[in-house]
Amino acid sequence: MIQITNSNMAVTAIARDVPELAAWIRGRSRSALREMVSLASRADLISLAGGLPDPALFPTRDYARALAESLASDGAALQYRPSFEPLKRQVAELMAERGAPCHADQILLTTGAQQAITIAVSLLLERRGRVVVEDVTYAGLAEAIAPFRPEVLTVRTDLSSGMDVDAVARLAADGLRPAFVYAIPDGHNPCGVTMSLAKRRQLVNVARRHQIPIVEDDPYGLLSYGAAPLPPLRALDQDWVFYLGTFSKTIAPALRLGWMVLPADLVGRAQIVKEAGDLESSSLTQRAVSAYLDTGRFQAHIRALREVYRLRRDTLLKALETHFPPAARWTCPESGFFVWVELPPDIDCTTLLDAAIQEERVAFVPGEVFAMGAQRASNAMRLSFATCASDAIEEGVRRLSRLLARRIPRD
Amino acid sequence: MIQITNSNMAVTAIARDVPELAAWIRGRSRSALREMVSLASRADLISLAGGLPDPALFPTRDYARALAESLASDGAALQYRPSFEPLKRQVAELMAERGAPCHADQILLTTGAQQAITIAVSLLLERRGRVVVEDVTYAGLAEAIAPFRPEVLTVRTDLSSGMDVDAVARLAADGLRPAFVYAIPDGHNPCGVTMSLAKRRQLVNVARRHQIPIVEDDPYGLLSYGAAPLPPLRALDQDWVFYLGTFSKTIAPALRLGWMVLPADLVGRAQIVKEAGDLESSSLTQRAVSAYLDTGRFQAHIRALREVYRLRRDTLLKALETHFPPAARWTCPESGFFVWVELPPDIDCTTLLDAAIQEERVAFVPGEVFAMGAQRASNAMRLSFATCASDAIEEGVRRLSRLLARRIPRD
Repeated sequence: MIQITNSNMAVTAIARDVPELAAWIRGRSRSALREMVSLASRADLISLAGGLPDPALFPTRDYARALAESLASDGAALQYRPSFEPLKRQVAELMAERGAPCHADQILLTTGAQQAITIAVSLLLERRGRVVVEDVTYAGLAEAIAPFRPEVLTVRTDLSSGMDVDAVARLAADGLRPAFVYAIPDGHNPCGVTMSLAKRRQLVNVARRHQIPIVEDDPYGLLSYGAAPLPPLRALDQDWVFYLGTFSKTIAPALRLGWMVLPADLVGRAQIVKEAGDLESSSLTQRAVSAYLDTGRFQAHIRALREVYRLRRDTLLKALETHFPPAARWTCPESGFFVWVELPPDIDCTTLLDAAIQEERVAFVPGEVFAMGAQRASNAMRLSFATCASDAIEEGVRRLSRLLARRIPRD
Repeated sequence: MIQITNSNMAVTAIARDVPELAAWIRGRSRSALREMVSLASRADLISLAGGLPDPALFPTRDYARALAESLASDGAALQYRPSFEPLKRQVAELMAERGAPCHADQILLTTGAQQAITIAVSLLLERRGRVVVEDVTYAGLAEAIAPFRPEVLTVRTDLSSGMDVDAVARLAADGLRPAFVYAIPDGHNPCGVTMSLAKRRQLVNVARRHQIPIVEDDPYGLLSYGAAPLPPLRALDQDWVFYLGTFSKTIAPALRLGWMVLPADLVGRAQIVKEAGDLESSSLTQRAVSAYLDTGRFQAHIRALREVYRLRRDTLLKALETHFPPAARWTCPESGFFVWVELPPDIDCTTLLDAAIQEERVAFVPGEVFAMGAQRASNAMRLSFATCASDAIEEGVRRLSRLLARRIPRD
């Protein structure tokens, strides 16, 4: 309601004034994550863009039943409540299945893994502090650290063995003492690479020797397609690894339910940070997820997900082999949703995306969305094999290859 | 997994080392908010403690139906999704009913009002920046600003007309330029006071003249018990007021669904902050709440809530009048859940709470939980009339008055 006065000048001045924003947010106006979700939601495209699980694979009926039962059986299921202890015990059992046993009292339930990232950051990072990240990594990490205006130290990612841990060791030996190292050892987003066991051991040893916490982001840990998944970092160390898990990729994103497994004595402080963020994660959702896990159907569901996603991965890899130009290289993921494709250096994938949407009705995420520090990854793209069925994946790759054929000479 | 070596000294050293935490969290280990929820959840007490709506009043069946319908009708209701636009339009209609019309595109959906507070804080507050708050106010605000280690400037709260806006004007005239002023004009938590219309106008004028944003926290705005609720601050200004609303008190807390109404051009930036916090609020919940609002039953539900809570307020006030010592003073709330009771200065309500639980099985929240700055409010308590039925409220007050009778001479 603008007060109309005799002075139009005054009214104009009032209308032009805006609150002074905190410095970190002033220059920012767009969100790459949000744009990815919008892109992936468009029905007129074949989207290999979003990191979205396939909703046709959600255990929707089982979850609907669990919700209805929780509401019917507990008159306070919609109330503010302390964390639901049975669910923490069930998460502890999942952690054991994941190869990283823990106690229920080391677990903090969170509103998805993104909130868990934010909590870890808030616990560990000082303003203008240092963090070590890979030079292409999950874009939500960049969003979580942005308000701290940190010094971001980057290390390379080898596309077959993961993070350059030697580089981390050198940074640590130089006495740089980062607040934490952020790692996605399994189903790396965006690179789809699995960190080798040797590197896992080395990274944990560096963390111990130099007293550097590791934030291990593991949204895809239960979605492994090989015979013998490697142990998470948390299995190798309990004092320096902050483990982050989520039900978003294994049950459904709209649960907004994840968890942290924390070093001893930090759960109480993490709880304070969590509470400042949103008081608590939905008590109804906690009860419904617990009821669903109680049915014992989750294990068979995970096996089915692994089977379907493995086939889609194989479809994507075969289609790339068949259709993509010889100059392209890509990763072969052992878990997660993503294949990382590198094209010749003169191909700019950000402008290529516009052409892909306009000319071929297909979408991907340009590599630069994940770029930290000096690396730009402008000639790379992330392809997801999770959201679309196999025929759409094949057709999507055919469309992309037509687009590339018009830009890359065949030899 | 602790490596066993030949050197016990080394093992001990590893076990003792812990990650270095950010400075703001090092000294903190308990959460007053969490303790309140735990206290309010104890079945062996009459609790006048928590700010918890009565679960018997939740529209549980209607919401269960809305959830089931949303899951059945939308195959991607559990997916990552852009904000549900129909819900934003419905929130805009609620804002009009609340007396503060806005456009749907000025709304950001949030994971409850607590997340909305955190977003406003992150947008506006610099590290070591200044904020203006009342010297007793909602404890979740203190949690949200703590990581910034701000300079907290406090103003008094008059128990019949609300915030001392003259004091705010003086701070502003002194050129102190706080990042924002935090206000709860209706159903003040913990004081239960309504800010007078004159003070609302004055506060908005101070904000405009000195270009100071106001964060208006309005969780109880729709729960008013008088004939003619006053306009929210947002109705008096659209450029400087950040309005925060929530369904937690009118539908149910476990929705974890709230909203902000923002000055023009800030929604995009607020979205970035929100996304860093938890990506998005549950798409299923957004659809289910929208479906519930679509039934048209929300308005009758709100009228019923007002009726019940008004009767409980009256019961609490009458019981205080009947049983409490003459030396006690308390507020008469026009909206919200809370009555603020001030006792003689020598009564310490924090130690009194232990006695109340032990001797009389009754709980309240000691005033010091809400104290900011120099004020300690040690002789005050917050009583909630929302959670318990009238007979329990009466019995709770009788128990408290027995406790006080053993401590306060009758004349």
